[in-house]
Amino acid sequence: MEGNRIFLFLNMDKGKLYLIPVPLADDTTAASFTPHALSLLNGIDEYIVENEKTARKFLKDAQITIPQNKLILHDYGKHSRDVFEMRKAFQNLFLGKDIGVLSEAGCPGVADPGSQIVEYAHKNGIQVVPLVGPSSILLALMASGFNGQNFAFTGYLPIGKSERIKKIKSLEAQVYNNQQTQIFMEAPFRNNKLLEDLLKTCKNDTRLCIASLLTSKEEYIRTQKISEWRASTPDLHKKPTLFLLYK
Amino acid sequence: MEGNRIFLFLNMDKGKLYLIPVPLADDTTAASFTPHALSLLNGIDEYIVENEKTARKFLKDAQITIPQNKLILHDYGKHSRDVFEMRKAFQNLFLGKDIGVLSEAGCPGVADPGSQIVEYAHKNGIQVVPLVGPSSILLALMASGFNGQNFAFTGYLPIGKSERIKKIKSLEAQVYNNQQTQIFMEAPFRNNKLLEDLLKTCKNDTRLCIASLLTSKEEYIRTQKISEWRASTPDLHKKPTLFLLYK
Repeated sequence: MEGNRIFLFLNMDKGKLYLIPVPLADDTTAASFTPHALSLLNGIDEYIVENEKTARKFLKDAQITIPQNKLILHDYGKHSRDVFEMRKAFQNLFLGKDIGVLSEAGCPGVADPGSQIVEYAHKNGIQVVPLVGPSSILLALMASGFNGQNFAFTGYLPIGKSERIKKIKSLEAQVYNNQQTQIFMEAPFRNNKLLEDLLKTCKNDTRLCIASLLTSKEEYIRTQKISEWRASTPDLHKKPTLFLLYK
Repeated sequence: MEGNRIFLFLNMDKGKLYLIPVPLADDTTAASFTPHALSLLNGIDEYIVENEKTARKFLKDAQITIPQNKLILHDYGKHSRDVFEMRKAFQNLFLGKDIGVLSEAGCPGVADPGSQIVEYAHKNGIQVVPLVGPSSILLALMASGFNGQNFAFTGYLPIGKSERIKKIKSLEAQVYNNQQTQIFMEAPFRNNKLLEDLLKTCKNDTRLCIASLLTSKEEYIRTQKISEWRASTPDLHKKPTLFLLYK
């Protein structure tokens, strides 16, 4: 009997892990969500989330009909990651229930730690379903006018002065040697410092695209040469921004 | 008088260039489009398109209310690119009209030649507005479980046998030396050949994600080790597919 029950369990259909992009800016639900994603959200009451507070706000903004106190949220944020139990968060998935993954903004698994959750799903035969939604990296790349047939995203630049200058030089070299667009970012309160370092370090003719506050009413996207940026430098303090380099 | 007229022209508000992603598969409008994108489409009757036939089909599928014979399409496809006149396509933009850019599938300017249009816009002070929509590259990256904090897309691999093997080895080296996810693709009728070369060339423990027919009902996304793929190899012939390597 015991053997039979285990056999039945193993043969049950597992749930799906939905990767759900989160809007990049406030009041942009209509510009961020497909009707398919919104209708799916109404069928999911359990999530693995990077930040419980922003996840609740997001689900409220998306106007899902499931009451907040019925939601099961597994916190995968940086302060709880050490005690996060992957197997516990996946328990209901193994039993056939669909579960969603929500990052803080943008696409789960891109520029955030969500990929570890997806990796665990693949290793355990769970089907992964990525939903269409906003990615600041892709929006910035599209809008930059730079090479979209060869590009790299390298995340955050080093904070230390000399390492950072070295990194900027190596990114610029990739542009010229490999015709590869370089995409990177910075913690928003350090944006102006990064811009300053870029303008000091890069060649006059290298082009820089600044893509800031994407999808919001204050969206700012502009591509011009380093020499032109030097002549007139925007204030990017605390504004979420992608930086792109190309020749 | 002549001078005055020129002065007025220069001060007119220019139109915006909207970058509009196109669904990756048939019958996926609800899973590909935000309400914002659909409502915008109904206000635009002039487009720069990578393929006139698929652009017309797309606009029909999106159920826009503008009759097909009222649409102005500037063909930027590979067979017309030599005779394409950027200034002519932008003429109405300079006069204040909004114009859209449509690639064959996915995001304009990413893995297609649309970036040249965006580059021209930036050089001429035209505001560029990227819309949220499907990108097979980003969907594949999200769903791979691979490093999304450092990744590169390198487009199509070389066709010549020895060059291609050399490229695969260099991509695998980037994975191990730089912890960088490698994303690439192939013309769909050559997918099986590429997969064969990957399985022959890469290390047993290197992981490969195959992301095929994204957003369609037949979507197939799976990540496993090269050794596991060798034991059971899918048929990818003529199925649009992204390949991703990581360790």
